[in-house]
Amino acid sequence: MKLANRLEKIAPFHVMDLLAKAKSMAAAGRDIIHLEVGEPDFSSPQAVIQGAKQALDAGYTHYTAALGLPELRLAISQYYDDRYGETVSADRIVITSGASGALQLAVSALVNEGENLLLTDPGYPCNQHFLANIGAYGKAIKTHPENGFHMTPLDVQTHWDEHTRGVLVASPANPTGNLMDPLLMAELHDRVVEQGGVFIMDEIYHGLTYGEDAVTAVNLSDHVVVINSFSKYFGMTGWRLGWMVLPENMVPAVDKLAQNLFLAPSTPAQYGALAAFKPECIQELERRRQVFNERREYLLDAVSGLGFDVEADPNGAFYLYANISRLNHALAHDSMAFCLNLLEETGVAITPGIDFSNDRGHEYVRFAYTADIPVLKQAIQRIQQFLQHG
Amino acid sequence: MKLANRLEKIAPFHVMDLLAKAKSMAAAGRDIIHLEVGEPDFSSPQAVIQGAKQALDAGYTHYTAALGLPELRLAISQYYDDRYGETVSADRIVITSGASGALQLAVSALVNEGENLLLTDPGYPCNQHFLANIGAYGKAIKTHPENGFHMTPLDVQTHWDEHTRGVLVASPANPTGNLMDPLLMAELHDRVVEQGGVFIMDEIYHGLTYGEDAVTAVNLSDHVVVINSFSKYFGMTGWRLGWMVLPENMVPAVDKLAQNLFLAPSTPAQYGALAAFKPECIQELERRRQVFNERREYLLDAVSGLGFDVEADPNGAFYLYANISRLNHALAHDSMAFCLNLLEETGVAITPGIDFSNDRGHEYVRFAYTADIPVLKQAIQRIQQFLQHG
Repeated sequence: MKLANRLEKIAPFHVMDLLAKAKSMAAAGRDIIHLEVGEPDFSSPQAVIQGAKQALDAGYTHYTAALGLPELRLAISQYYDDRYGETVSADRIVITSGASGALQLAVSALVNEGENLLLTDPGYPCNQHFLANIGAYGKAIKTHPENGFHMTPLDVQTHWDEHTRGVLVASPANPTGNLMDPLLMAELHDRVVEQGGVFIMDEIYHGLTYGEDAVTAVNLSDHVVVINSFSKYFGMTGWRLGWMVLPENMVPAVDKLAQNLFLAPSTPAQYGALAAFKPECIQELERRRQVFNERREYLLDAVSGLGFDVEADPNGAFYLYANISRLNHALAHDSMAFCLNLLEETGVAITPGIDFSNDRGHEYVRFAYTADIPVLKQAIQRIQQFLQHG
Repeated sequence: MKLANRLEKIAPFHVMDLLAKAKSMAAAGRDIIHLEVGEPDFSSPQAVIQGAKQALDAGYTHYTAALGLPELRLAISQYYDDRYGETVSADRIVITSGASGALQLAVSALVNEGENLLLTDPGYPCNQHFLANIGAYGKAIKTHPENGFHMTPLDVQTHWDEHTRGVLVASPANPTGNLMDPLLMAELHDRVVEQGGVFIMDEIYHGLTYGEDAVTAVNLSDHVVVINSFSKYFGMTGWRLGWMVLPENMVPAVDKLAQNLFLAPSTPAQYGALAAFKPECIQELERRRQVFNERREYLLDAVSGLGFDVEADPNGAFYLYANISRLNHALAHDSMAFCLNLLEETGVAITPGIDFSNDRGHEYVRFAYTADIPVLKQAIQRIQQFLQHG
């Protein structure tokens, strides 16, 4: 079967090879510690599960509107008020099939074939591929630890070209976990607006910050598209539910795209999400945030002690992005080989930086602190031994 | 906000205007009869609901593999054996976010920018738009009632050009409900293979046939992609779950596309679907099929008696595609005006043919028999009065 050319521009995740190896090792009886996957280890909160079950019992299993359940759009509008003190009309809120669905809709609505968005390197790998899928492309801007691996206003000016449609950045970012300073966010936004472009802000790790709360870009201007998700803070990865906040005049276009490409987001997921805003659920999510923070503090200390260099403050999400090049290990300049070798010898799975960066990804690995501290301690012991023999 | 050019090629459903009007009429206290929506009125079967609830209680709320739960792929493989007597390895089966997700993945994997697929007119409107989204296009082939509104082998030869990548057809088809003869299907397939193309068969209404069972294209050759869904026969519209059967060598490409564009299909939906193959569930679905058939026989008779002309045997799905041009009514040559007027005057909502056809869509309407016979009887009475005054 002859495949479309765009597939040459779309790479699988390298971590999939690791996952396959981990699976066969587990099948052979090996004990695997999973610190490679980008999802909370917690199951969805009980309130979400109960909300979905009640809806199922009531027979709510039909399509919703393409833009989502009106009451869920309203609940999210209320959440912006409660959490951020921002006024966001429910009319600007679009429910999507995960942040993946949101990103698909956003690039389809905004970016022509042959045009580009400025992205950060390192960054979320799929962003390149959402663009490649529709004949557009991402210009990956090399970022630096001293800027928290964020794009700078100067980068926007330097790299903007006649085919650039906008900027897509994230805060807290994946893989670095670094939260962008609100002043930087506003400056980046202003540079983009000066160029006549669109500022797309990925806020899917909002809620998971350990220090200052994240500031949202929703009301910076009407040149902003905000992507968010029920996956991370709300612990609903498998349900595939996200949302976007759009400039009001963009909503009809996204509506017709969503009708055609998705029909509607998942109904059980939307009813589950409706229950996620209950006070007892937010309380549980805040408790989980504390747990993440304790793990973060332990792991950051421990890996730093082993010589991993976490160069930018990992004050959000649930990741540490660590430079391995100063480790005393034969594979310290080849993150994929390092991760494969670590997995084979110790059963500890982490993600190679090459999944996030074409620039210096071979010098980095990503740890996800999605396991309890006793498990993290075990992982650290194994990694320590691995390094002693490497 | 400047929108991408592809939006000019992507139309909203005309029926959405009708739905908006129906909603405001209902809010004003009018009694609306909904025969316009493409989904069963039944809620999902109890087995599906129980299966999902048990999975939720067990905390199965995380991502699955991008290709889907291995046990669900296996269950579908078994279903091909049980229902069709066809051997389909689970490795060829890919779980998707609805048939919409399947169609997105199929066109992205197979069709380059500037290339086309041959489609039927009338047909499912989104097919054009999945293609437009990636810079490709559909060549809509006018079909005729005497061929059951299906493409003919001669059409394939006549319309195939140097940019044609394949054919996408459906059986039973939407909006006609007509089941394609297996001989025609095999002939169409053979013409496509002679041209070196791919034969994409939409089988999402399989199971809902009233007479002969549908024959699947899965094993015609390794140039076939079959699209299917849990929405229609299995009554799971709102869950957004479908599947594809692929040639084995296409699976890795679709895997990496699915990883990037969707991450994974919905986990609760997949556990619900796993329970859909239980004997007691299939029994319930077969009972529903009987109900659909009784409604179909009633409605076909009744609308024919009123002068609507259902030109091709509606022996599948849950639709009647009726020619209105021989009705004695002032709007009988303008299906959109006819449907709007019918809704305003009687509260009966049906879909204008222009949602399915750029050719003669203004002469047709689609009835969905997704209401019980007493409701259908009421609709018929209202339509009869409407015609008497038109």
